[in-house]
Formats: sequence, C-alpha cells, structure tokens
Amino acid sequence: MALTNHKFLLAARPVGMPKASDWSYVETPVADPKEGELLVRVLYISLDPAMRGWVNDVRSYTPPVGIGEVMRALGLGIVTVSRNPRFAVGDHVTGVFGVQEYAVTDGRGVTKINAQVVPLPKYLSVLGMTGMTAYFGLLDTGQPKAGETVVVSAAAGAVGAVVGQIAKIKECRVVGIAGGAEKCRYLVEELGFDGAIDYKSEDVKTSLRTHCPNGINVYFDNVGGTILEAALANLARGARIVICGAISQYCNTGPVAGPSNYMSLLVNRASMKGMLVFDYADRYAQAGAEMAGWMAAGKLKSREDIVEGLATFPETLLKLFKGENIGKLMLKVG
Amino acid sequence: MALTNHKFLLAARPVGMPKASDWSYVETPVADPKEGELLVRVLYISLDPAMRGWVNDVRSYTPPVGIGEVMRALGLGIVTVSRNPRFAVGDHVTGVFGVQEYAVTDGRGVTKINAQVVPLPKYLSVLGMTGMTAYFGLLDTGQPKAGETVVVSAAAGAVGAVVGQIAKIKECRVVGIAGGAEKCRYLVEELGFDGAIDYKSEDVKTSLRTHCPNGINVYFDNVGGTILEAALANLARGARIVICGAISQYCNTGPVAGPSNYMSLLVNRASMKGMLVFDYADRYAQAGAEMAGWMAAGKLKSREDIVEGLATFPETLLKLFKGENIGKLMLKVG
Repeated sequence: MALTNHKFLLAARPVGMPKASDWSYVETPVADPKEGELLVRVLYISLDPAMRGWVNDVRSYTPPVGIGEVMRALGLGIVTVSRNPRFAVGDHVTGVFGVQEYAVTDGRGVTKINAQVVPLPKYLSVLGMTGMTAYFGLLDTGQPKAGETVVVSAAAGAVGAVVGQIAKIKECRVVGIAGGAEKCRYLVEELGFDGAIDYKSEDVKTSLRTHCPNGINVYFDNVGGTILEAALANLARGARIVICGAISQYCNTGPVAGPSNYMSLLVNRASMKGMLVFDYADRYAQAGAEMAGWMAAGKLKSREDIVEGLATFPETLLKLFKGENIGKLMLKVG
Repeated sequence: MALTNHKFLLAARPVGMPKASDWSYVETPVADPKEGELLVRVLYISLDPAMRGWVNDVRSYTPPVGIGEVMRALGLGIVTVSRNPRFAVGDHVTGVFGVQEYAVTDGRGVTKINAQVVPLPKYLSVLGMTGMTAYFGLLDTGQPKAGETVVVSAAAGAVGAVVGQIAKIKECRVVGIAGGAEKCRYLVEELGFDGAIDYKSEDVKTSLRTHCPNGINVYFDNVGGTILEAALANLARGARIVICGAISQYCNTGPVAGPSNYMSLLVNRASMKGMLVFDYADRYAQAGAEMAGWMAAGKLKSREDIVEGLATFPETLLKLFKGENIGKLMLKVG
C-alpha cells in the first residue's frame, strides 16, 4: 500500500499553555491492519478542552497520554481497509483515532454513522461527545424543570451552546456567559438565549444578579475560577451545579482556584456534581435520535469552527484556551 | 415578679476569633409575658459552630444577629409563666431562647420535651438539632449503603460522633478524623468507629488512603479547608460529600479556602451537597423516636461537655473553634 501517515506525538508534558515543542510531528508508514482490525482515514479531528487534562501525568478518569505516544483525540473518518466483519470499506465512523491521518483500530469504541443525515462535522459536535455531554450533563445531572433559570458558562463553546438550547427546549429561562460582544449576540440572536453576559466587559456576579433576580436553579459549569464563584454567589434554594469542566484552570501553572464561597451550597441547600459523558454510552443512540429530531425541527442549531490542516494542530488547539472559537472546534485533515 | 435577667448582647461583629469585647453582659428586668406568650427559665444553652456565622453581617439562611440584640442560641428550659394554652408551668421546652437566663416567647418554634426519658442535656445533643443534623445529613443527603466507607470530620464533636454511630448502625465502615490521641481513642474504643485519624499528628490525605483503600463513599464534612481537600483526593466513584459545616474557616480573617481539587467531583462522578437541619422539621419527631430507640439499645451514645455558668459564655464558646470539646458543648445556667 505504501501509505504514509502524519501524526502528532506528545513530546513533553506541557506546563501551562501547551507549546509547539510539547509535540513532535512525525511521518511513518501506515501499518497493515491485522485480522479483526480496520484502517481508518481520518477526515476530522475533534479538539476538546479535556485534551489538556489527558497530557497531565495524574490519576484521572483515563490514563494520561504517554510521552512519545500519538496524541489522543476523537475523530471521524472513513474505513479504507477492513479485516473486521462489523465494518466495510467506505463506512463512515467515529472513534478515538488520535491526532493523525490514519488510524488502525480493532473497532472497540468505533461507531458507524450515517453520512446522509447531517453533514459529517455534526457527528463530532452536536451528535458527538460534545452534544452528549451537554444532553446528559444538563438533563441527567442538572435536572432542569420548566420555568427554572439555567445559566451556562463558555456558552458559545461547543458544549455550552447545546446546553442552552436544550434548556430552552425544556422551557427554562437561559442565560449564557461568554467572552465578547460577538459571542453574546450569537447566543441571544441566533440561539435564542434569554440573556448573555460578557465576562470580558461585565462584572459577572453583578450581572447574574440582574439577569437572575430569583437566583440560578441550574448552573452548568465549563470554566471554574471566578465565574464559578459568581454563580455560587447567586444560587436559588435547591440549585444544582453541574461540573463539566474548568477550562479557566487547565493551563494554570499554580494550584487550581477552588471556589472560596462553596458554603453557598449549604446556605442554599444546593449541590455540585461532576459528570463524565462516557458513563452514558448505552444511551447515546437514544439521545442522538432525540437531538437529530430537534435539529430537523429547527430547535437545535450547531456551529462548527473548522480549521484546515493537521499540521496546524498545536496552534489550533490553543484557540480553546484563549476563547477564540465559537462552536465546536475541529481540524479538517488532508 | 421582680425577676432579673442576665444576658449576652452582641456588642461588635467579631473579626476572626470572637473576643470578650464583642459581647456585652447586661442585667435587665424580666418582662411580663403578654397574652399568648410564655416565660421560660433557661437551664441549658447549646453552643454551636453555626453561632459564628449568625454574627456575620452577610445574607445567609437566617438574618444575622443585630448589634445590641441578645445573642441567638438554642436552649432548654422550664416554663415558669404561661399565657399560651399550648404550654403549662413546669413544662420542659427547647427553642431558640438566646444566651440569657430568661426568655419570653410566643411559643413558635418551641417544643415540649419529656424530662423523664433521658437526661435533659440529651435534648440539646443527640435528641436536639445536633442529632437531627447528623441523622438527616447522613441518611438523607449522604445516602450511605451497607458496606460503604463513611468518613466524618470533627468526629469527636457533637454532630460527628452521632454521624459515625449512625453509619455503624447502617453497617458502614466508619473512619473519623479528629484532633488528638484522646479523641481518636474515644472514637474507636467508646463509639466503635473502625478507624480514627489524628489530624494533629498525621497527614490526613495519606492516612485516608490507608484507611480507605477502596476510596470514600460518603464524606460528612464539618470542617472544610485542607481536610476537605484530603477527602476529595480519596473519593470512590459516585461518592457523596455532605457539606454540614466548615469550622476551620469560620474564624478566618482572610478569604475562605475553597477546595482546590474540587474537580475530583468530575473525575469520580461525585457530588457535594449542602444541608440545613431546619428543612427537616416535620420529620424531627420520627428521627428522635428512632434515635431514642438506638440509645435505649446501647447502639448510640452521646457525651456532653457541660460548662457551668452563663457568665463563661465568651470563653466557653471558643472551645469549639479551638477543638477543645469532646461531644456536645453547652452551658448550664444558674
């Protein structure tokens, strides 16, 4: 076959914001799939805040990426060789394919998708882990009820935008927190949020008080830090905080800032609960079908921020941590 | 009647540890109860960590005590005059009577107790708010299951000792965290805890790993600070943290230390939930009956640390914040 693969390996453990020298970009021959395996040509690579955690050498929900290993990433591709009866050449699939052009896999954790229903990138955004995180984090962990006030941070990001729209579908009042006027306008005018707070130009704690006069019932946190504290300062009785991420803290070189006003949980009989999307794998199909229905009905929109070129990975990834993306950030390969 | 009342008023808002000058000790005539009211001679005054919060000028679950007002406190007394048909002279009652010898009340929030069943101080400890906090905080918020590992901080304190014993009754493994060898011995030898960690001589994070090799399923937090962080570092998947108090932080003059490793909630799909005993008022009677049964069966012990003399209030209160009490701290009046 004589195919050549390009890939990014983890070269060093990043300290703070990942640097170009934390990665090595290498060219290797593509291995032949063995019996039971398949070869996937990667078309899109999902870029996610969680990737920053995967390169830290700490015990977490998944082992860290080793030095010299292909950087872990979700992706979408097409099967080009199959020695696995579950897959045929030409199938479109999603899975953990890594930051590379070709992946050989035994098919575990690989899902076939229907390329006719929605554009391919949607399977990495609203119909992928991102959308599933929003769906289960909000509905299962957050338990919003009609008429309640839902606040979401990183609201113009991939997860946040879906959280807010599902909360609207569930007849909640929705306020998003995002950075900059353009993102805030997008939330209110395009996605139908009831309000948006620009954390770059407003005092979030004060603005939350204005936007949520009866307090926050569900706060979906993607960012941590001072915005989590601002939400804790504005909880309604019995509020639920969904801990989905803490992107403001991922590139800290010092210790993570814990929420100094966490005793608001006691005052308000509130809860703060962590969630991981992988726990809901047996319900992805049902959630995907429901969200596809909402998309078809025009109730759920998604935007993708697609950057061309595998080689741009080191700089493109940083858009997440600089808050430069609107919607789901991904790489288009080849 | 010409009765004289002695009482402690809040003179200034304490900064850090309350000082003697934050209180004024005054003598006033006892007011005559009006129609519908009753006069209670206070016998015991409950001293609780929550009192430190009640004197801060911040929005909380209850309005702060005003400057010049009688210091708020739970107490137990005997009715000496009644112009309220629900109460008769000679009734023993509990209620929010304040740090004083006599209280005039309209009877709201006042509960008659049966002085024949257990010694009076038990009605301010295991059968009072303290015991109710332990009962509902552990069983309703913590939801322990037989075989799980329950960890409680301030374990030799009034709430913690009851939490641990109820967890044992529910067939959990119980580890207490307390300060000093005497308290740790008390937990294991007298109360039947499976283990105890002396935070004054041990590294709590390391000791928790030893005592809880499969992680903590329920952590009942009375202290906050570094001990909360040590518990967060040792959670089992799906753990529940009950936020009942944060006594290590109440007398801080700087900001409260939030738990810097709160993202352990995400890694472990764990929750942290605040509770306030007052929400369970309609179930106190049922809980009290169940706990009285456990006491009669020898399964639930309680110890009271009773200091004589209303006038000692300013120094006695500090025992809580210095960790000097074992069991329920209270004043005996007169």
